[in-house]
Amino acid sequence: MHQTLLLLPGDGIGPEVTAEARRVAEVVAPDLKMEEGLVGGASIDAHGDPLTEETLERARQANAVLLGAVGGPKWVGSARDKRPEAGLLALRKGLDVFANLRPAFCFPALVEASSLKHDVVAGLDLMIVRELTGGVYFGQPRGIDETSGIRRGYDTSVYTHPEIERVAHVAFEIARGRQGRVCSVEKSNVMESGLFWRQEVTLAHAEMGAGVDLSHMYADACAMELVRAPKQFDVILAGNLFGDILSDEAAMLTGSIGMLPSASLGAPGTPGLYEPVHGSAPDIAGQGVANPCAAILSLEMALRWSLGREKAADMLFAAVGKALDQGARTKDLGGSLSTSEMADAIIAAL
Amino acid sequence: MHQTLLLLPGDGIGPEVTAEARRVAEVVAPDLKMEEGLVGGASIDAHGDPLTEETLERARQANAVLLGAVGGPKWVGSARDKRPEAGLLALRKGLDVFANLRPAFCFPALVEASSLKHDVVAGLDLMIVRELTGGVYFGQPRGIDETSGIRRGYDTSVYTHPEIERVAHVAFEIARGRQGRVCSVEKSNVMESGLFWRQEVTLAHAEMGAGVDLSHMYADACAMELVRAPKQFDVILAGNLFGDILSDEAAMLTGSIGMLPSASLGAPGTPGLYEPVHGSAPDIAGQGVANPCAAILSLEMALRWSLGREKAADMLFAAVGKALDQGARTKDLGGSLSTSEMADAIIAAL
Ligand SMILES: CC(C)[C@H](C(=O)O)[C@@H](O)C(=O)O
Ligand SMILES: CC(C)[C@H](C(=O)O)[C@@H](O)C(=O)O
Repeated sequence: MHQTLLLLPGDGIGPEVTAEARRVAEVVAPDLKMEEGLVGGASIDAHGDPLTEETLERARQANAVLLGAVGGPKWVGSARDKRPEAGLLALRKGLDVFANLRPAFCFPALVEASSLKHDVVAGLDLMIVRELTGGVYFGQPRGIDETSGIRRGYDTSVYTHPEIERVAHVAFEIARGRQGRVCSVEKSNVMESGLFWRQEVTLAHAEMGAGVDLSHMYADACAMELVRAPKQFDVILAGNLFGDILSDEAAMLTGSIGMLPSASLGAPGTPGLYEPVHGSAPDIAGQGVANPCAAILSLEMALRWSLGREKAADMLFAAVGKALDQGARTKDLGGSLSTSEMADAIIAAL
Repeated sequence: MHQTLLLLPGDGIGPEVTAEARRVAEVVAPDLKMEEGLVGGASIDAHGDPLTEETLERARQANAVLLGAVGGPKWVGSARDKRPEAGLLALRKGLDVFANLRPAFCFPALVEASSLKHDVVAGLDLMIVRELTGGVYFGQPRGIDETSGIRRGYDTSVYTHPEIERVAHVAFEIARGRQGRVCSVEKSNVMESGLFWRQEVTLAHAEMGAGVDLSHMYADACAMELVRAPKQFDVILAGNLFGDILSDEAAMLTGSIGMLPSASLGAPGTPGLYEPVHGSAPDIAGQGVANPCAAILSLEMALRWSLGREKAADMLFAAVGKALDQGARTKDLGGSLSTSEMADAIIAAL
């Protein structure tokens, strides 16, 4: 039986970069069955809903889902559940992809693109494991209302024992395939959910952390250390909100946000969700200048983590590095290649 | 009547750096009455409480409070209200200092200490205005308990109309004395308290933002932009938690966390709280090598913002710059001056 990859191009530059990832997939995994669907603003425009039940069901049936990006000025100000982002959150929750893997690594050819000094980032290779289906993103109660005549907005930051345990196990597993070090990040000095996070990660480590060296850091200190000396980290484990912020910071250390992919994994045997770290970039959408590398490397992660095609993944990763070494550069990297010319260069390097 | 400065040296390197700030104060403001008190671990050890009611009352009666730092390994694992940090939070709340001003600027002599490239940070001068007495730091309910057999930890992230309005006004006021630009930061795409924050800041701007250019950014994008191009910012306005993380990140951009002061302000006429951005640094405490500049510059902010002594403040700021230009460096800056030798150099430059 053929494996299926569901492409959800989404909005802005999403369709442009996903189309290139599709072309690459046709070369590195020709037997892969590819389907397409709508998410985000594109789905709102077609169905009035950022993720239809039918699309979610197709995602559940696929072996992996490759998403482009969602969002854009067109839908800003709509009701919360009629926004593109709601589709992305519903997809994450619906697939129960609780572990978001966000690597931050510096391709040798791109070290100079970083705003950090050469020695600070050359050779940088860290992995952020971000909890993706819990925390303040989904906690209840939440809302905007008036209490005793005072208007207020509120959310609940909450983590449960099973939520923390399962994502900690993923972080330990990933670390064992790397340098074996996990740094867990929270604000246990001021938050009860942070204290609980630290306690539970410590327990999970005692039970399932063989071979892994666990340390703890406050989120503010981590934001600082990422700037000062990012190479000290191997795997960073964080909740949904801290993971969101720290992974964007870490991504930018590499100087090329257009390069970085992500993988979101659920229970073994369920489909993973793969997406670039960058957004829909409405300012450059439709111009054919977006960097397709993050989408292509997201495909690379899908091949590796959901489709069991390590060899194709290794080949593809090497081809991206080779194309860069040969000077292939889109505009964001200081070059002039179009989106599809960049993909051509990668395909040629395969 | 004499003005009073209450010194709360606290823990770790707090007493060492505060002692030097005191020496400097004796030179630049000889008529200032100085008192000392206990906070944090020091107060726990003496009174079993990280902030006594009596000390809080003395702080309320002072014109300004200069705090060193709190915390250390000795008190880790104590009950939440028997931790040094609880004393700091109680002091902030007790003085109602809701606006935390955290400048991030690069002294010309120190640009090379940054891990960022010269052009990215040379001339950097931004101000973070962080809400300090609300948000998830204080929201109720919060706790760790068991519901339907599942253990969980939770906090409430909440902001009210008056809380947002008053801190937004401070940010607008500060911006008018600078380049007139405020960037308000939240996660309104996923948090109701974030959406409420954005709405309320927009309203406050319509009412009291004359002459101020207001923009909005998600916290993750801001963490990224601070690394990519920090000089784009003038004033960043953020809630307690995002302000905590982003101000630490911004501080580290300057390369010398030992240099940066902060001011926490309440209603006009009430005492401000001044403290270094750095922590108690237990690893180097008692060795006389800590950098006293952040404490001395916190004194400088106290002279400016609470004591109405702009001229003394200007003089002191210039003296710190001059001492650095002349090569004065503590260990963290790559030099070998002791804590008091660094203060000597600044006093000599006055
Ligand atoms: C678009 C937004 C809802 C999303 C998030 O906050 O998770 C994005 O920032 C991300 O990190 O994927
Ligand atoms: C010590 C801690 C409670 C504090 C905070 O989180 O506010 C510190 O990080 C700070 O920024 O002053």
